[in-house]
Amino acid sequence: MPPDVFRIANAADLDAIVALLADDAIARTRSGHAEAVTPEIRAAFVSIQDDPDDEIWVGERDGRVVATLQLTILSGLSRNGMRRALVEAVRVHAGMRGQGIGERLMQVAMDRARERGCGIIQLTSDLRRTDAHRFYARLGFEASHVGMKRLL
Amino acid sequence: MPPDVFRIANAADLDAIVALLADDAIARTRSGHAEAVTPEIRAAFVSIQDDPDDEIWVGERDGRVVATLQLTILSGLSRNGMRRALVEAVRVHAGMRGQGIGERLMQVAMDRARERGCGIIQLTSDLRRTDAHRFYARLGFEASHVGMKRLL
Repeated sequence: MPPDVFRIANAADLDAIVALLADDAIARTRSGHAEAVTPEIRAAFVSIQDDPDDEIWVGERDGRVVATLQLTILSGLSRNGMRRALVEAVRVHAGMRGQGIGERLMQVAMDRARERGCGIIQLTSDLRRTDAHRFYARLGFEASHVGMKRLL
Repeated sequence: MPPDVFRIANAADLDAIVALLADDAIARTRSGHAEAVTPEIRAAFVSIQDDPDDEIWVGERDGRVVATLQLTILSGLSRNGMRRALVEAVRVHAGMRGQGIGERLMQVAMDRARERGCGIIQLTSDLRRTDAHRFYARLGFEASHVGMKRLL
């Protein structure tokens, strides 16, 4: 088996990424949930590509995209102007969980965040995703905060 | 008394903003905590000013900056490419709490996020800030997520 590949996504990956995002019981309950690429999703992908502080990463096994996350580099005044990395939209293909590819993708994201000068990395995870909380805890994340959201 | 003013911060506000960020028992425990403006903080402020998706807002009473927050507009593929707003570094002067200025600043941030096309606004708050959690709940925020962080 060829080694897994971790790289920044390009437009050709968009169908596979959206399929990963869609295959999720919690995401399905949310407003605006889309099962396939729409013009709005394509526009969002272009915005992310055009923003030097925003990256979508994918993990590929056997030439197939099976994991994804979004990494955003944030500026802030706190902690002496420390840059921070925000991770969103982490997904591993349902058939590929527990095989280490998600963990390796997160390690790649942490390396990338360090390379971009970040001193901290943060994410929020739905309270119902208890498996995910354990996964992030194993990677050294601390559940130190409450994540609050409000539709506008 | 003149009406309170809510506006995007400029460089002349930086000392006051950093003083608000510094006057916080939890922030004081964190690595890199700074009590006054440093070159690193000044550089971070310039980055924020140069980024069209990043804004620091202040609330002014009697010509004095007494509240602040950072609003970042994020692109994402989830929820049909919905833009989201991230709120960080919310502070109200210790002597001004409970007088509605923080609530009005948050309302301004939500209006601004809507104007910028965001369908959701999110933040994380340290688990120890129980008063803040009640404050955000009153504003319609739901504690639906766990906020996880890791130093890099």
